[in-house]
Amino acid sequence: MKLVIPVALAAAALCAAVPASAQFAKAEDAIKYRQSALFVLGQHFGRIGAMANGKVPFDAKTATEDAEVVQDLARLPWAGFAAGTEGGKAKPEIWKEQAKFKEHSDKLQAESVKLVAAAKTGNLDNLKTAFGATAGTCKACHDAYRSR
Amino acid sequence: MKLVIPVALAAAALCAAVPASAQFAKAEDAIKYRQSALFVLGQHFGRIGAMANGKVPFDAKTATEDAEVVQDLARLPWAGFAAGTEGGKAKPEIWKEQAKFKEHSDKLQAESVKLVAAAKTGNLDNLKTAFGATAGTCKACHDAYRSR
Repeated sequence: MKLVIPVALAAAALCAAVPASAQFAKAEDAIKYRQSALFVLGQHFGRIGAMANGKVPFDAKTATEDAEVVQDLARLPWAGFAAGTEGGKAKPEIWKEQAKFKEHSDKLQAESVKLVAAAKTGNLDNLKTAFGATAGTCKACHDAYRSR
Repeated sequence: MKLVIPVALAAAALCAAVPASAQFAKAEDAIKYRQSALFVLGQHFGRIGAMANGKVPFDAKTATEDAEVVQDLARLPWAGFAAGTEGGKAKPEIWKEQAKFKEHSDKLQAESVKLVAAAKTGNLDNLKTAFGATAGTCKACHDAYRSR
């Protein structure tokens, strides 16, 4: 057993060393993956926006469920921007400014946590504030890194 | 305050009565939504399969993370098969056999919970068993309801 653990650790270290792009069979899959995750996220985020903007009645339970999907999905797209996966509407700057790009994705994830908390309060003003802050992170990143 | 609660409940009831298709601006969005959710799910499920089939070394932490994404995503696609959203590779039988179709989607969700539990045990044989059972639910539903 004593030998098994170092071998397992070595294997895990090898895994960790595999570049993120290796998670995808081909670059097209990575592009489709990030677009898909962002589309699903956007659908649920849009429903929260409809409540925040008074287009549909505020329902805290539904808003919380949508915010939780946004939170779940907000973790995913970034692995799809791996090295060698340029394309789609993604500007090449993403791969030249990785630290800045990561700041944007980290911000979205942080705001999505606050969005869930706001929805759970059942207070529409809280939801509006958190929706606005989250939407701001979407816009800032799209303005900088998404082609029109 | 006593008046506010019945009004809120009435509004919530109205919301619940809105058909699922109303969640999407147009049928194309529903189709893209379900395809997107299933694609993201499939990417993470495929990574677990690569471990289960010995193509990449088993790593319990990574497998658990992938299984959790599968579990999160497995809840989503079904709302995208709302009334009036026929299209894509979805066979028309889906809308004629809603109870049967729901059995399939419920099964996937149940198996994905077991998949997370299996990954967490850190035992590859457990993962293989749970992966096989989950893959079986994918195949059964695709055989019945997805066009080639």
